[in-house]
Amino acid sequence: MMTSYTLKQIASFLDAKVKGDEDFTITGLGALESAEPTDIAFLGSPKFKKQLANCRAGAVILEQAQSDCFKGNCLIVKDAYLSYAKISAWFDSAPTVPKEIHKSAVIDPSAIIGDEVSVGPNVVIESNVRIGSGTDIKANTFIGSGSEIGEGSSVAANVSIYHNVRIGSRVKIHSGAVIGADGFGFASKGKLGWQKISQIGGVVIGDDVEIGACTTIDRGAINDTVIGNSVILDNHVQIAHNAEIGDNTAMAAYSGVAGSTVLGKNCLLAAGAHVVGHASLCDNVQVMAHSLVFKNIKQPDSYSNGAMPLMTTAEWSKNSVRMSQLNSISQRLKKLEKKD
Amino acid sequence: MMTSYTLKQIASFLDAKVKGDEDFTITGLGALESAEPTDIAFLGSPKFKKQLANCRAGAVILEQAQSDCFKGNCLIVKDAYLSYAKISAWFDSAPTVPKEIHKSAVIDPSAIIGDEVSVGPNVVIESNVRIGSGTDIKANTFIGSGSEIGEGSSVAANVSIYHNVRIGSRVKIHSGAVIGADGFGFASKGKLGWQKISQIGGVVIGDDVEIGACTTIDRGAINDTVIGNSVILDNHVQIAHNAEIGDNTAMAAYSGVAGSTVLGKNCLLAAGAHVVGHASLCDNVQVMAHSLVFKNIKQPDSYSNGAMPLMTTAEWSKNSVRMSQLNSISQRLKKLEKKD
Amino acid sequence: MMTSYTLKQIASFLDAKVKGDEDFTITGLGALESAEPTDIAFLGSPKFKKQLANCRAGAVILEQAQSDCFKGNCLIVKDAYLSYAKISAWFDSAPTVPKEIHKSAVIDPSAIIGDEVSVGPNVVIESNVRIGSGTDIKANTFIGSGSEIGEGSSVAANVSIYHNVRIGSRVKIHSGAVIGADGFGFASKGKLGWQKISQIGGVVIGDDVEIGACTTIDRGAINDTVIGNSVILDNHVQIAHNAEIGDNTAMAAYSGVAGSTVLGKNCLLAAGAHVVGHASLCDNVQVMAHSLVFKNIKQPDSYSNGAMPLMTTAEWSKNSVRMSQLNSISQRLKKLEKKD
Repeated sequence: MMTSYTLKQIASFLDAKVKGDEDFTITGLGALESAEPTDIAFLGSPKFKKQLANCRAGAVILEQAQSDCFKGNCLIVKDAYLSYAKISAWFDSAPTVPKEIHKSAVIDPSAIIGDEVSVGPNVVIESNVRIGSGTDIKANTFIGSGSEIGEGSSVAANVSIYHNVRIGSRVKIHSGAVIGADGFGFASKGKLGWQKISQIGGVVIGDDVEIGACTTIDRGAINDTVIGNSVILDNHVQIAHNAEIGDNTAMAAYSGVAGSTVLGKNCLLAAGAHVVGHASLCDNVQVMAHSLVFKNIKQPDSYSNGAMPLMTTAEWSKNSVRMSQLNSISQRLKKLEKKD
Repeated sequence: MMTSYTLKQIASFLDAKVKGDEDFTITGLGALESAEPTDIAFLGSPKFKKQLANCRAGAVILEQAQSDCFKGNCLIVKDAYLSYAKISAWFDSAPTVPKEIHKSAVIDPSAIIGDEVSVGPNVVIESNVRIGSGTDIKANTFIGSGSEIGEGSSVAANVSIYHNVRIGSRVKIHSGAVIGADGFGFASKGKLGWQKISQIGGVVIGDDVEIGACTTIDRGAINDTVIGNSVILDNHVQIAHNAEIGDNTAMAAYSGVAGSTVLGKNCLLAAGAHVVGHASLCDNVQVMAHSLVFKNIKQPDSYSNGAMPLMTTAEWSKNSVRMSQLNSISQRLKKLEKKD
Repeated sequence: MMTSYTLKQIASFLDAKVKGDEDFTITGLGALESAEPTDIAFLGSPKFKKQLANCRAGAVILEQAQSDCFKGNCLIVKDAYLSYAKISAWFDSAPTVPKEIHKSAVIDPSAIIGDEVSVGPNVVIESNVRIGSGTDIKANTFIGSGSEIGEGSSVAANVSIYHNVRIGSRVKIHSGAVIGADGFGFASKGKLGWQKISQIGGVVIGDDVEIGACTTIDRGAINDTVIGNSVILDNHVQIAHNAEIGDNTAMAAYSGVAGSTVLGKNCLLAAGAHVVGHASLCDNVQVMAHSLVFKNIKQPDSYSNGAMPLMTTAEWSKNSVRMSQLNSISQRLKKLEKKD
């Protein structure tokens, strides 16, 4: 796809001030350090401003405070990173999807498919499914009975959506994601093993949600698992049954929540951060990488218990082995203090 | 699916005593706090008994000790949570699967398919596969040459089962699961990279096993990887080559075992708990979340080395940075004690 | 598949010295402890040499120093484990794939498919894809527009390869792997949620790479994500956008790198080890299990901050709770030392 825009066009879309030649033609989007002479680049953070000296880009998106740092054409905006984000779609290389239903797709006659929907090869859509207008479903994806997807959403190849899952509009789901598999619910029968608990709830997903590759969102045991609007989930995320994830919350790779856990709005779980079952986190909580939250959090803040100082393994071994003496160390210190 | 049962019918199945109107009609299963007037609910633990006061359910499954806490109809049982588990299937919303072979399925003529088997659209079944009676295989799933699945099992959409995998009866496998991929076996060639080791063993999975979404069970290097009966695996679990998992063992999300590791019976690995290669755990071992087991365990107990106290990140930074001094702290304390 | 080789044939391939009957016929590959009388086994490490006393194998691959420990036929080599790795393919049970294009595959006419390529049932290949000679693509796999795979590669069932992904020769990709999904890139719009950043870069993967089941490699934001030659990735690995992984580097299950992270050559990330974004690790760095690297590493060594001593949960609780006092412990100790 050949793209070609004048700086004037881009500035108009971004509500930017042009410094330089507004008729200059941009044909691509580049990183500061590797942009070509007809690319547009962006200064995502002032800390990279030294790179502007050698930047070959045809124009740079930046903020007023850095507008003198680049000699070439500039688009001056309030938030350079957000402006880059907004314009990035103009340079996307993703192929446009034909708005048609491939003849190999297996679609139950009771399914209701909106206008301008794309259904790729070997997609399977079961009974009573509803697909909203403008939504794309790529090859080999499965959508179970009674599930719904809103308008303008995009489901990649090899996605599995079980029955009775309701997904909003402008949602993007990546390959390998599994939505609506059974929650992990069993009652012990002692030595006789486990009694499976049928997971009869569904999943409800809001609008403008992103769901990464190989991310799993389990269906509820009785009531639904609920994902709010504008939630963004990276790859390998796990949302257990009956969890509720508040609007705008972001979860990085390998982060997850156990059953019936509630995350507030605008929360962040960094990579590998987990929250145990039935815990509740208020809005605006950040949990740092590798942390394990095992209680409610009622105060917005950043929380941690994961990352230790990094050492050579030799140093780590000497120090970490003392963890088994830490209680003793504390008690012995107290004893010395008393004598003191 | 409209469900409708009298309390008498349910009591008979659960071997429960009815307190109240045994002809009362139940149409659904509800949670204590949200059950509708014709739902049946359950008191999973005595600690929730206060919720009975405002519970609108038409009947509640509970134990003798709490039978006076609910004014409406009660089903009095020995184990309320287990009883709920048993009855849950009566209210399942999962669509019934047509017991037929979809015309788009690609099935090798040498495959032996039992009675009352359902094979969904675009399923691929290779040569010499055996599928037992009553088993369901959903859309777009792949089953490789020579593999076997027992009776009454259920394989969701987009599951990948490689060649020479033997799976028992009443096994449930969720979407995105991968069974029989190569174990991670390579011999170093130094600067020349890695010599792949062909993984010529298979996978053997017992009866009544549950395998979660995106869970992987690798084939053995020479001998088989073995999963016992009634093993339950959550999503994103990893079982490496030649591991052996004992009967009734449960593994939560992101837990995993490395190559040739042996877990006993009735073990529990909590979320993100891992066991290194060639380790052996006896029966009835529990490993808490985020722990890393790097040695054999011969004594049934609960083991941990993962979860630290949760703090604000500011507090955590101040404390965790001292980990690099912990050996020194210990030695200095000893020195003071000697002088003392 | 019946396999049958004389020791002479095997010795010739491995450049081994035969001790015993070079006309002895081998029909399988066995482990030391379970090999049958016509199997060949190997002594992977001198520490298992006691097992040779009871080993029933028809022959054992071992090194000179242990050549007297087994009474039967021996193949004496320089590196027994590497020799086993090399010969293992001779005994592989994987079915041979018919070198044909299944009639149910959906292949865009603009795709260029090399000689001796196998394309399985329901595979979907979009426009302008190139598949090199001798490559196998198994059932239900998706390959997006403009992507390329080299020669002699093997892609398992249910793999998802997005558009504009370039994969080298002799690469093996396992089921559930997702290559080229969007990197996790969003700009904050504050209370308005997140602005998606189109991920316009691709993925470039070298030769002789192994990619495990459910492993994800995201496409770049602007430039490409790059995987070197002979990189081996286990299951559930995550490679974020614009990461670069050096030649021969190995990543175990659940290990991952965040965006724009650079790993050198011959590195090892053990299970669950993660590297934060924009960090750079030099060649020959090992990161132990469960560690979190949050800074650059410029010195080849083994690094850790993950594994603590394993204790019973009761002991762990007593010790770990002191972590919240560790800063105080350190300061109080210093105070005592000053008084001393």
